[in-house]
Amino acid sequence: MSENEKSKSNGRKNVSARTNQNQKTAKRKNADDKAVVKKGRPSQQKEVKRTPVRIIPLGGLNEIGKNMTVFECSNDMFILDCGLAFPDTDMPGVDIVIPDFTYVERNADKVRGIVITHGHEDHIGGLAYLLKKVNVPVYATRLTIGLIEGKLKEQGLSGKVSLNIVEPRKTVKMGCMAVEFIKVNHSIPDSVGMAIHTPAGVIVHTGDFKVDYTPVDDATIDLARFGELGSKGVLALMADSTNAERPGNTHSEKTVGESFDKLFQKAEGKRIIIATFSSNIHRVQQIINCAVRYNRKVAVFGRSMINVINTAIELGYLDVPAGVMIDIEMMSRYESERIVLITTGSQGEPMSALTRMAMNDHKKVNITPMDFIIISATPIPGNEKFVTRVVNELMKSGAEVVYEAMYEVHVSGHACQEELKLMQALTRPKFFIPVHGEHKHLKKHADLACQLGMDRENVIIAEIGNVIETDGNTMKVVSQVPAGRILVDGLGVGDVGSIVLRDRKHLAQDGLIIIVIGIERATNEIVAGPDIISRGFVYVRESEELIDEAKLLLTDTLDNCSSSELREWNSLKGKMRDALSDYIYQKTKRSPMILPIIMET
Amino acid sequence: MSENEKSKSNGRKNVSARTNQNQKTAKRKNADDKAVVKKGRPSQQKEVKRTPVRIIPLGGLNEIGKNMTVFECSNDMFILDCGLAFPDTDMPGVDIVIPDFTYVERNADKVRGIVITHGHEDHIGGLAYLLKKVNVPVYATRLTIGLIEGKLKEQGLSGKVSLNIVEPRKTVKMGCMAVEFIKVNHSIPDSVGMAIHTPAGVIVHTGDFKVDYTPVDDATIDLARFGELGSKGVLALMADSTNAERPGNTHSEKTVGESFDKLFQKAEGKRIIIATFSSNIHRVQQIINCAVRYNRKVAVFGRSMINVINTAIELGYLDVPAGVMIDIEMMSRYESERIVLITTGSQGEPMSALTRMAMNDHKKVNITPMDFIIISATPIPGNEKFVTRVVNELMKSGAEVVYEAMYEVHVSGHACQEELKLMQALTRPKFFIPVHGEHKHLKKHADLACQLGMDRENVIIAEIGNVIETDGNTMKVVSQVPAGRILVDGLGVGDVGSIVLRDRKHLAQDGLIIIVIGIERATNEIVAGPDIISRGFVYVRESEELIDEAKLLLTDTLDNCSSSELREWNSLKGKMRDALSDYIYQKTKRSPMILPIIMET
Repeated sequence: MSENEKSKSNGRKNVSARTNQNQKTAKRKNADDKAVVKKGRPSQQKEVKRTPVRIIPLGGLNEIGKNMTVFECSNDMFILDCGLAFPDTDMPGVDIVIPDFTYVERNADKVRGIVITHGHEDHIGGLAYLLKKVNVPVYATRLTIGLIEGKLKEQGLSGKVSLNIVEPRKTVKMGCMAVEFIKVNHSIPDSVGMAIHTPAGVIVHTGDFKVDYTPVDDATIDLARFGELGSKGVLALMADSTNAERPGNTHSEKTVGESFDKLFQKAEGKRIIIATFSSNIHRVQQIINCAVRYNRKVAVFGRSMINVINTAIELGYLDVPAGVMIDIEMMSRYESERIVLITTGSQGEPMSALTRMAMNDHKKVNITPMDFIIISATPIPGNEKFVTRVVNELMKSGAEVVYEAMYEVHVSGHACQEELKLMQALTRPKFFIPVHGEHKHLKKHADLACQLGMDRENVIIAEIGNVIETDGNTMKVVSQVPAGRILVDGLGVGDVGSIVLRDRKHLAQDGLIIIVIGIERATNEIVAGPDIISRGFVYVRESEELIDEAKLLLTDTLDNCSSSELREWNSLKGKMRDALSDYIYQKTKRSPMILPIIMET
Repeated sequence: MSENEKSKSNGRKNVSARTNQNQKTAKRKNADDKAVVKKGRPSQQKEVKRTPVRIIPLGGLNEIGKNMTVFECSNDMFILDCGLAFPDTDMPGVDIVIPDFTYVERNADKVRGIVITHGHEDHIGGLAYLLKKVNVPVYATRLTIGLIEGKLKEQGLSGKVSLNIVEPRKTVKMGCMAVEFIKVNHSIPDSVGMAIHTPAGVIVHTGDFKVDYTPVDDATIDLARFGELGSKGVLALMADSTNAERPGNTHSEKTVGESFDKLFQKAEGKRIIIATFSSNIHRVQQIINCAVRYNRKVAVFGRSMINVINTAIELGYLDVPAGVMIDIEMMSRYESERIVLITTGSQGEPMSALTRMAMNDHKKVNITPMDFIIISATPIPGNEKFVTRVVNELMKSGAEVVYEAMYEVHVSGHACQEELKLMQALTRPKFFIPVHGEHKHLKKHADLACQLGMDRENVIIAEIGNVIETDGNTMKVVSQVPAGRILVDGLGVGDVGSIVLRDRKHLAQDGLIIIVIGIERATNEIVAGPDIISRGFVYVRESEELIDEAKLLLTDTLDNCSSSELREWNSLKGKMRDALSDYIYQKTKRSPMILPIIMET
C-alpha cells in the first residue's frame, strides 16, 4: 500500500512533513516521555522509572554484514534491518550467511513489523529468509521497497508480503514504540536513519551514513532533525562504525563525477568501461551524465547491474535522456569511442562480467589496447587479490586501467571520524552503542565518543545476542538470546554446519582416500578388496607405487585380524584407518581424510 | 669456504674493495667490452656484434615471489636467486610454490653457480629443492649464507653444498660472465644487487632494494657504485617493481625506531608485545635498543623468530647487551611492565604465536588489559582478514593494539617511485626489464622509465620462461623455455597438479557423495548396495529423507538396467552418477562430487 493509505489505516491523515504528527501521537501516549522532552537531556533529570526497552542486536556487531537489530518494549517488538553477510574463506561452498532468527521466531506474535534503512544486501539480504518464517509488514523508503520487491520475487514471495513505503520525517507505529525515518547520505539513494520513540526515551539509529553536502540528485542528510532530537533529549545513539578508523571527512560523491569528467577527456578515442557497485545509483547517474556530455552511448552489463538500473529508472531515481542507453546487442552499430560500458565486477568476483572480460571469456566484449577501464570501487577486505588479478589481466591485453587510489574514482559511503563526531555533537546521547563494524571499529568509535566527553560507562560495546536493557536512567546488558550465523548453500538454509564445514576443509587440504572391502555376511569372510580410491590426494597415475604399497599394507592388516575382529566393523574400520593414515603420513607428510567402507554381501 | 679462500682459488689475491680487481680481470678478457667502457654509454656507440647473452626469468614476473633468473652466455649459465611463493587460496592444501626447474636441470652441466641477493624466503626458499637436482656452489653475503645454512639443514643438505661468502664490491666468476655484489638497503641486512659483467655488456640487477640514508647498524646502498657503472655504460637494468605504484620515497627504518620509542613511553606500566617479520633484524635491533633504554627484558616467541635471532646474534648482526634477553621460562620472574615479547604472527598466520595468544590458545601468554601490543608490519595482500581477526581478538581481551597506519610502526623494504627514478638516473641503462612484481607493477615501472626519457621499445615487460637475448645492440624475446609453478605439499614436490587441485576445490565447494554397490562376478548380479556415504555435503542425521530418497532412486536406476548394462561398468557408473547428480541438484541446488564404486565379489 502507498504511504497515504498506510497513514490512513493508522488513523492519521494529512501528515505534514515538518510537524511530524505521528511522532507527537506516539509521545502523547507517554507522559513520562513528554516530561523528558521538556526538561532537556536525560542526563540532567531526576531518575524516573519507565517501561524498559530492550535492544537486541542479532547481527552487525563484531562483524561486517548481516545487520539486524530487535527492539522490544512490553509486548511489542520490531526489527531494524535484516541483512546477509558474505562467507569467509573458512566457509567453502557457502553462498551467503544470514542471522540466526530463533529469538524472533519464538516471539513471532510480538513482532509488529520490520523497518529497513536502505537497500544494500547487508541490510535486506536476509529479509526473504526471515519473512518465510515470520511474515510481518515491511517499512522502507521507496527505492528500498523497489529493491526488496525484486528480492522477494526471486524467492517466490511476490505479493505475499505487506510492503509499505515510508518517507523521511514520517513515523511508523510499532505497538508502544514509533519509528521515525530520517534522511541520511550513503552510497545508495533513499537511505535513512531512524529515531525510535520509546517509553524509555528516544533511541537514534543512524543506519549506514555519511555527510554529503553536495550529493548527486539527492538531499543532504537531515542534520537539522538529528539536532532537534538531540536538543530535546536522546537516550541512546547507535551509529555506523565502518570508517571509525579513518580521520577526516568522507569526500562527496560529486568528486567522483569530477574525476570521471577528466578521465572521459583522457579516454578520447577509446572505448570506456566502468565497473562499480550496481546499487550505487548516483555513481551510475554520474557516468550517464558524462556519457551525455561526451556524446557516448551507454550499455549495461551484469545481471544485478541491469536489475538495479531498471528499478531505478522505473522509480525515477535515474535520469536518463532518451537515446543514451543502448542494448548490448546494438553496440556493434557504434564506433568503440562512442561507447561506455557500465558493468559489475568491481570486486573481481570470479563470475562477474568484468572478470570474464579480463579472462577473455566474455562473448560480447574483447579487451584491446583501445579500451580505457575504470574500476570505480575499492576492494572489500578479502577481495584484494581478486581485484588485482583482474587489473593485471586487463593490462596484459594492453588496456589502460584506472583503479583504487590512482584517481579519485571512488568515495566511501560511510562517515569518517569528523562526521561521527558531528553526529555525536548533534544528538548528544546519554548512552552510546557503536554498531556496524568489527570489534576494532566499535572500539575506535567508542574512543571517539569518549574523547567528546561521553562517560566510558555509558558506552556499550555489545555482542550479537546481547539483551541491552534501558529504563531511561541506566543501560546495561542483562541477558543473552540465541544469535549466530546460519549458512545458506544452494537451497539449504542451515544444513551446512560445523561438521560439514570441517569435512569440506579437511577434503580441501589433503583430499580423500576411500578403502572398500566386501565381507560375506554368513561367513565373515573378506570376499572383495581391499580397494583404494583417492581424490584430491595425489595424481594416482604418477603415484602407483604408493597406492600399491598401501593396498599391501591393508591386506596384511586384514590378514592379521581374527574372525571375531572381522565381526566388529567399527573397530575394523578404525584399524584400517589407523594403519593407512600412519603409512600415508610417514610417506607424504599429509593427512588425507580416510574413509573405510565395508560392503556386506 | 671463506671469501679469502675463494679469492685465492680464483687466483686473485689482495682484492681491494675500491678498485675491484676481479671485475677488471673479467673485463680484460673481453676487448669489446673494454672499448665500450671507454666510449661511454652503449647507445652512443657504433654497433659491434658481441657474444649474445640470454636472460631467462623463471619466476618473479607477473607474480609476487619465487624470484629466479637464469643468465646464460656461450656455454656458461648461472642462477640469480631461487625463491618460493606462498600458495593462493585456489591452491588448497599446498604448502609452498617453487619455480619449474626443468630448463636448469636440462642444462645442469652448464650451471656455474647460484648467486643470492638476500635471505628472504622469496629469494632463497626454493634453493634446497633446486640443489637436490643441480648441486652447484652458492654465493651470497654472510648473513644470507647463514640463513641458507639453516634452510639446507632442515632439508638434510647440511654440508653437502658449497656455500661461499661474498662481500659487497667483490666479484664472482661464472665462466665468461662475472657477478659483482653491490650493497643495497632492504628489510633484511646484507642485501645486495648485482652487476653482471658479460661479453655483451653490464647488466645491473637491483635485487629487492630501497634507499635508506639512515639505516640501522648498516651502510647506505652503494649509490656511488651504481653511478660509476652507469657512467661507464650499463647495457640493461633489471629493477625491483614491488612499490612502483607508490609515489615518493620509502621512509627510513630509523623512523620505526622513533615510533617505538614513543610507544614504549606510552606503554609504561604495561607488558609490551611486538609482532614483526622474523627476518627484519634491524627492526628487532630497534626493539632491543628500546628495551635497554626503558629497562625491559626481551623474550622471543615463535620458531622462525628464535632461529633468525640466534643466527643474527651468532654472526654479529644483532647487538644484544648481556642480560637483556631472557628465556620465556624466566618471564614469570619479572614484573609484566619490565617485559617486551618479540613474536611472529604479524601476518595473522593461523598457527603463529601471536594468533594463538589472540585466541587464548597460548600456553605461556595470556592477553589482558595490561598488554600493549604493536603489530609492526602491513598485511601482505591476501592476509588482510587474518590480521584483522587477530587485532579484533586481542582487543576483545582488553589489550591496547597498535597496527597498520595508526603510528609509523612499519616501513616498506622496497623502493618507491622517487627511488626507482634515482636508480634509473644513476645506471642510465640502454635497456630496461622491470622485475619483481605483478603485471600492474611492471607496467607502472616501465611507464616511470619512459617518463625519464627511455625509449618504450627498449623496455621489455617479460614473462617467466621468456628467453631475452641481447648482443649489446638489441634486446628482445627470442624464444621460450618451460616455466611455471611446482606445488609442494608435505613431502610431495610436484605431485599435486591441476587435477588434484580441481578435485580439492570441488570437494571443498559441495562435498562428496559415494555410491557403493557389490556385483557378483559370475552372475552379474547386484549382491550389495546401493549404499550412500557422504562427507561435507549435508549433515546426514538431519537429511535422512533426502538420502533415503536418493537410495530409492539408485535402486530404481539399477533395476532398470539390463544384464548387459550391468556388465558395462563404466557406463553403469555414469548412469548412477547422472541420476543422483540430477536429483541432488534439483533438491538442493548443489553439485557435490559423486563417486560411484563397484565392488566385484
